[in-house]
Amino acid sequence: MKFSMERGTLLKAVSQAQSVVERRNTIPILANVLIEADGASVQFRATDLDIEVLDKATAMVERPGATTVSAVTLHEIVRKLPDGALVTLTEEAATGRLTVEAGRSNFSLATLPKEDFPVMASSEYSANFTAPAKVLRRLFDKSKFAISTEETRYYLNGVYMHTADGDGGRKLRCVATDGHRLARIDADLPAGAEDMPGVIVPRKTVGELRKLLEDDDMDIAVSVSETKIRFATPDITLTSKVIDGTFPDYTRVIPQGNTRRLEVDAAEFAKAVDRVATVSSERSRAVKLSLDEDRLILSVNAPDSGAAEEELAVAYSDERLEIGFNAKYLLEIASQVDRENAVFMFNSSGDPTLMREGNDMSAVYVVMPMRV
Amino acid sequence: MKFSMERGTLLKAVSQAQSVVERRNTIPILANVLIEADGASVQFRATDLDIEVLDKATAMVERPGATTVSAVTLHEIVRKLPDGALVTLTEEAATGRLTVEAGRSNFSLATLPKEDFPVMASSEYSANFTAPAKVLRRLFDKSKFAISTEETRYYLNGVYMHTADGDGGRKLRCVATDGHRLARIDADLPAGAEDMPGVIVPRKTVGELRKLLEDDDMDIAVSVSETKIRFATPDITLTSKVIDGTFPDYTRVIPQGNTRRLEVDAAEFAKAVDRVATVSSERSRAVKLSLDEDRLILSVNAPDSGAAEEELAVAYSDERLEIGFNAKYLLEIASQVDRENAVFMFNSSGDPTLMREGNDMSAVYVVMPMRV
Repeated sequence: MKFSMERGTLLKAVSQAQSVVERRNTIPILANVLIEADGASVQFRATDLDIEVLDKATAMVERPGATTVSAVTLHEIVRKLPDGALVTLTEEAATGRLTVEAGRSNFSLATLPKEDFPVMASSEYSANFTAPAKVLRRLFDKSKFAISTEETRYYLNGVYMHTADGDGGRKLRCVATDGHRLARIDADLPAGAEDMPGVIVPRKTVGELRKLLEDDDMDIAVSVSETKIRFATPDITLTSKVIDGTFPDYTRVIPQGNTRRLEVDAAEFAKAVDRVATVSSERSRAVKLSLDEDRLILSVNAPDSGAAEEELAVAYSDERLEIGFNAKYLLEIASQVDRENAVFMFNSSGDPTLMREGNDMSAVYVVMPMRV
Repeated sequence: MKFSMERGTLLKAVSQAQSVVERRNTIPILANVLIEADGASVQFRATDLDIEVLDKATAMVERPGATTVSAVTLHEIVRKLPDGALVTLTEEAATGRLTVEAGRSNFSLATLPKEDFPVMASSEYSANFTAPAKVLRRLFDKSKFAISTEETRYYLNGVYMHTADGDGGRKLRCVATDGHRLARIDADLPAGAEDMPGVIVPRKTVGELRKLLEDDDMDIAVSVSETKIRFATPDITLTSKVIDGTFPDYTRVIPQGNTRRLEVDAAEFAKAVDRVATVSSERSRAVKLSLDEDRLILSVNAPDSGAAEEELAVAYSDERLEIGFNAKYLLEIASQVDRENAVFMFNSSGDPTLMREGNDMSAVYVVMPMRV
């Protein structure tokens, strides 16, 4: 194998690969990237056995072939090479090493046989559709903060992507929850997604996927089966196992009858919550919301360190209400609001509270109260 | 006590205080800042018992007085207040709490009696002089990387500041070493510093001092005794105990007879060292320098992961030489070079090597070789 590539193109391809590789793993080949040169292109493949990323780049291929080298070392080398350099990678048959040359720099890297590299089995996908990067980015960006980190509730360690009836018809929906808060985000259902099975996309996959979604105008090809999900751009294919579990019936958690409506500037609200939470002890960051006619008082009382109070002008015309929340959860949902005001719908101080942006039902958040 | 200040001024004063406070300490009062309001100014004082910082700011003092509150909490609150806000601090005699008010925000913080705050005893200083911030910054910035972190050799855990005969007369000199590398930086001796005792300025003090030295045109008043050192600007006074130990005779370590001269572009050299070191294992990051007529080959050989080699055009006219160094040490000294080329003076592959910028003798570095 021998081929040459411009440093920038090579760096981009290797970056995505090394990010999938687990830093601490006991199987040496999983630290490596599989490089396959053929025709006028080179493929870089990396996996952690749950996620596989395949990055295709054009190159000047002098001699086709394939080998595997440490993804992290190759990435570090390419990153440190000067911008614009032409990089030549050569597999030395005699030594079994991979030579990386650029200008007066010369590296010789240990390889492992390409045959040992675990290529993910190809699957039959039951649904194939295309969605703009912008749409997928919104679905995952607005839901991922609510993913649970509790390993025992493994079926909550991801975003549940499925189809559902939403505001104005059938929707492509992402839901995440950790039992304390929940995010439910809808997008128009793309053609071909009607029969997709509901799948739980693992947290790490959501993170890797994010890198494919930077370009607003890019269309992403999505394929879904009961066990796998695949996202593809013309250059990069990300395949991931989905979480083998049943996502709980989240619809029961979303309150339907909450009638006490508070409307508030989300940014002002977030800043005020952040300020009053300063005095609270790290463990129980409870903030009390006291609602009265067009007035919201946020307060924290931490016996050890002190107390804090801040008043906000809001729109509220229901009866007086006092309700407590974890400051972190309030900050997280308030930071999801990027248009209009935040609208909170309360019931009583013991019931889950709903939040959305204005009257938009395509992004709904639920947060459980805390006793204060 | 009651006074008001603009948020920006208050933030600056409290920032310096909270940075001296140790995050983990068992004496509650040491987590607090002592606030003393009198006349038209307020003083903020914090200490870790080794370092004391005193920050003076003008304020509208309505009622003089003094109290102590958590430095970190007060800093966090002030940081989160909107820019330009007027902040009022009031000690409530009834509750013993400190109220912090700004706009519609209201905080009430627990206090500890001002009498319990350990104010550092004042000292007689045997030398007092003034030096431009720029000069002190250079002395400490170029030496601090070589401070030892080994606690057993506590007398190396700081920068040794003293007077000495240097290139062109008596100098103010800073030296730091960890036994593997050494930095010796000279500046013209300020008037009044002639009789200063040599003192070892602890690492943390060097870090805190750095914040006083940002303004090129600021003059810093320095006072030195056998046990303490004080740095003062019109607003801030930083007093620190010095390390109670004897700095070793470093002059023996600085090679005098090295004659093999290598001149190289410092930035190019650093980049090449960084690149070849990529393949080496984390623990022994040894880089070999092979010198020949106007040619330097940098190489690393790590049996497990691979090998790397890079050639640089240099000025060298002595006989062939091979010598190894820790890549980290080479990178650190090369990054100190900000003018001209780096000049290395070698003796043999087993002897300490000297580095300086061009022919400037006011900044000299020594690095021990490694067997490769």
